[in-house]
Amino acid sequence: MPAIEPDAIDDDVHFCAVALFASQFRMQVIMTEHSLWRFSRALQRAINERQFEDIEAVIDEDVDWAIYGPIEMFPFFGARRGRVAVIDVIRQIADHVRVRRFERESVLLGADSAASMLRFSLTVHGSNKPISLRVAHFAQFKAGRLLSIKVVVDTFDLVEQVIGQPIHLPRMTSYA
Amino acid sequence: MPAIEPDAIDDDVHFCAVALFASQFRMQVIMTEHSLWRFSRALQRAINERQFEDIEAVIDEDVDWAIYGPIEMFPFFGARRGRVAVIDVIRQIADHVRVRRFERESVLLGADSAASMLRFSLTVHGSNKPISLRVAHFAQFKAGRLLSIKVVVDTFDLVEQVIGQPIHLPRMTSYA
Repeated sequence: MPAIEPDAIDDDVHFCAVALFASQFRMQVIMTEHSLWRFSRALQRAINERQFEDIEAVIDEDVDWAIYGPIEMFPFFGARRGRVAVIDVIRQIADHVRVRRFERESVLLGADSAASMLRFSLTVHGSNKPISLRVAHFAQFKAGRLLSIKVVVDTFDLVEQVIGQPIHLPRMTSYA
Repeated sequence: MPAIEPDAIDDDVHFCAVALFASQFRMQVIMTEHSLWRFSRALQRAINERQFEDIEAVIDEDVDWAIYGPIEMFPFFGARRGRVAVIDVIRQIADHVRVRRFERESVLLGADSAASMLRFSLTVHGSNKPISLRVAHFAQFKAGRLLSIKVVVDTFDLVEQVIGQPIHLPRMTSYA
């Protein structure tokens, strides 16, 4: 039997470590649901059923929140900081709209981050006016809770749908 | 020397395969730049220097392209299909604006996909009017070439900046 060379031991240890890492990684992928899905369900429940317990549980106390758009028309757009302010703004959204359905057109997941592009079908409370909305969001999570989210909306399309008529626009070249 | 058991061989083969995979994966991470960075540099060069060779080389022949927004004002918004149509629309963008700088606020990379949220500082040709633009994109690549990209822009903010005055908006509640 040949003597065991130190290099061979190192290789074995390395192989074991890699195999263990691969196995643990696979287990984690199988067993842990991404924070995005839990947050998404809780947000929908908050907006449509006015149930805020689930969403409170998945929002970090120091959350950073922003939906970019004209706040004079949509007071629930803009930046918010902290769980209390964010729950308050979600209540305001729930006061105005209901989510009929949404389609996730693209999604990218990191370990503690997520980005998706979605199309929402909403109705405005009172008028039952249907609104179709394209949204892109980038979210970061910490220990399963939302730490930061930034939302970009095709706001011109949204404004036109809410006022119910097209806004006349000249071609950009008129301003060049 | 004990007889080698079949299970032990399988384990060794498995360990070798995992180690080889891990090693190849690491090498690929070290050696291969993500397609997003090459595409991003080529796009900037096309818009600012009107050099279209680099961008042609990183766009798939059957590319799917969409920038959502009001096409009556911005004729280079909307959907395009195929490399020729996409190069043509990039030429139109280059005819209208120059990228002064951009900041990538968030980025998520998959193996053949990427999403980012960016803030662009642009100037409009002719007037030299500065425009600040928030953009989210989702891109897919195949063999290093752009296969699909969807871009969401905060379009209302963009329209107001280009016309150079605020559009009066009522609060959404007026329409409920």
